[in-house]
Amino acid sequence: MEHIYSYHHLTEFTREVFIRMGCSLEHAMLASEVLVAADLRGIDSHGVARLSGYVRLWEAKRINARPNIRIVHETPSTAVVDGDAGLGLVVAPYAMEVAIKKAAVAGTGWVSVKNSNHFGIAGYHAMKALDHDMIGMAMTNASPLVAPTFAKERMLGTNPIAVAIPAKEQPAFVADFATTTAANGKLEILQRKNLEAPYGWIQDKEGNPSTNPHELKDGGALLPLGGDRDHGSHKGYCLGAIVDIFSAVLSGANYGPWAPPFVSFLPLAPDPVGEGLGHFFGAMRVDAFRPAEEFKTHMDTWISRFRAAVPVEGKQVLIPGDPEREMQQHRLQNGIPVLAPVVKDMQEVAAKFKLNF
Amino acid sequence: MEHIYSYHHLTEFTREVFIRMGCSLEHAMLASEVLVAADLRGIDSHGVARLSGYVRLWEAKRINARPNIRIVHETPSTAVVDGDAGLGLVVAPYAMEVAIKKAAVAGTGWVSVKNSNHFGIAGYHAMKALDHDMIGMAMTNASPLVAPTFAKERMLGTNPIAVAIPAKEQPAFVADFATTTAANGKLEILQRKNLEAPYGWIQDKEGNPSTNPHELKDGGALLPLGGDRDHGSHKGYCLGAIVDIFSAVLSGANYGPWAPPFVSFLPLAPDPVGEGLGHFFGAMRVDAFRPAEEFKTHMDTWISRFRAAVPVEGKQVLIPGDPEREMQQHRLQNGIPVLAPVVKDMQEVAAKFKLNF
Repeated sequence: MEHIYSYHHLTEFTREVFIRMGCSLEHAMLASEVLVAADLRGIDSHGVARLSGYVRLWEAKRINARPNIRIVHETPSTAVVDGDAGLGLVVAPYAMEVAIKKAAVAGTGWVSVKNSNHFGIAGYHAMKALDHDMIGMAMTNASPLVAPTFAKERMLGTNPIAVAIPAKEQPAFVADFATTTAANGKLEILQRKNLEAPYGWIQDKEGNPSTNPHELKDGGALLPLGGDRDHGSHKGYCLGAIVDIFSAVLSGANYGPWAPPFVSFLPLAPDPVGEGLGHFFGAMRVDAFRPAEEFKTHMDTWISRFRAAVPVEGKQVLIPGDPEREMQQHRLQNGIPVLAPVVKDMQEVAAKFKLNF
Repeated sequence: MEHIYSYHHLTEFTREVFIRMGCSLEHAMLASEVLVAADLRGIDSHGVARLSGYVRLWEAKRINARPNIRIVHETPSTAVVDGDAGLGLVVAPYAMEVAIKKAAVAGTGWVSVKNSNHFGIAGYHAMKALDHDMIGMAMTNASPLVAPTFAKERMLGTNPIAVAIPAKEQPAFVADFATTTAANGKLEILQRKNLEAPYGWIQDKEGNPSTNPHELKDGGALLPLGGDRDHGSHKGYCLGAIVDIFSAVLSGANYGPWAPPFVSFLPLAPDPVGEGLGHFFGAMRVDAFRPAEEFKTHMDTWISRFRAAVPVEGKQVLIPGDPEREMQQHRLQNGIPVLAPVVKDMQEVAAKFKLNF
């Protein structure tokens, strides 16, 4: 039920699609690299599976293929970037680059972005800081699918947070997670396979816990990390809210239930409170705190000590980023499996632009 | 089973205790204000209930009553502060002040702290930014009580995160939460009452889920937010790890299982990887992103929209900080209840220093 494609093939194809949408060669190359990074790292819901979605948003004139991305406000350590309705896949790398440049001078750099669109996986952007011996951070708000604790209503997106921290000999620490119990992509897998979800992932339209993965189509909602009040869902709600505010209230994007939907068949909110979707990026030079070699040596100690933590029988303690890095190595060598419905989707995109897939 | 004391009485008494420990009047006043802020806001585990613990740490010469708190490294937007083994209750306000001053000039300020001790509630420090129209952040590492996903071993503290965000007419958004399913204070309440804990809060020494609140005394551990792998405990583990690294690896404090215990009867790690406990503080001027009035007006919209989210029957959606603010108003007027064992503790401290309580 799946086909294997090489990384090279998927990036080439998506690059051609972005070029046909009218993107510059530079933007198309960047956007395809960011998009397929998701497939490479095993976050299949955020990779080529979304390509047709981007195309439909462009057809609906919600994505501008030739954006004038620019800084609209700044201080020594901050900036606000206007994405001009461009692909988040190119707006985000621009903004992360600004954060890194600010950090080079001021020690840290913090960039809030408005007027953007879905930016792929947060981890890709956070990891850009690593080569500069900086800690990188990336977060974004997203289509409202999540009910705050005690609410029936969907008010927040899955609002992910990524933090990448450099080490010396050890591979970097890379956390990248939705602030919900389970990412929407995991639910989609259960929907496709018609399997039940664990309690604590979703609720029905009345706010009752449910195990039916199709609940979201019937007014249900994803739940914040924690799942219910007894298990700390108010903390997951806090995290999602902080991501929303840093990404959209600081920048002037749409926040909370006003965040624009990813799917083009849903209408935009009639009374927007800002422009497009919002993101937030950070970069901190580690030597703005202590010498970089010293910091990275201690990160090696941190990582090896945690990896050596006494495990539960039959398990092994992982360092954030381990599974994705291993998946990337495996898929670069062995190719990337793409599910049949996604292949069909890609073939339709190919036909639309007179390309082969 | 409890006595009611006025806020004034508790701060006066704790101030006198800190003076008898040898603190300056200025430090004693500040430390008592920070400590009793926990009782005022309803986080009883972090207030006067801990006073005798601070005294014992001082007796064990692990707290320096006359610290020379100072900046040891800085850039325009960052600093590292050495707490000189002082009370976290005075080291943290110093460091937060540095973050605020950096933000006034550079847009943001970020301070990592080493060689400190327990700093009270994170929310107190984050909220210091609000009067300056800044977003405040505070986090700290703590005694290892928490097992990472798939570990038997306690590697992290409850490592709280606080974020305070100013609004205009609405009260500020103030999130303040441990990165575990449940804070240790909540478990202590169950222990005292001999009640079972919900699944997902703790595990036994073999790493099996448990509902026995006494499990920690027998080699068990608290669990990261999420509770188990299916419910996203790896995300809670990521959050606790990020707090640990920002607080202690950036600054040069002890991290992970090396973090010093709060209780004086447990020995310090024989092979420390740093100095004392670590904290991390941040301040971001909101007008480093957009005009402050504009930002705060949108925060009012955010807050009132979320408060108006359609609730589950019989419930109401809360804004982070609501319960603590209401508790503070109530306790300022009606006094602060202190449990009998804590009163006994305080009376022993009083006797030690020839004071009345």
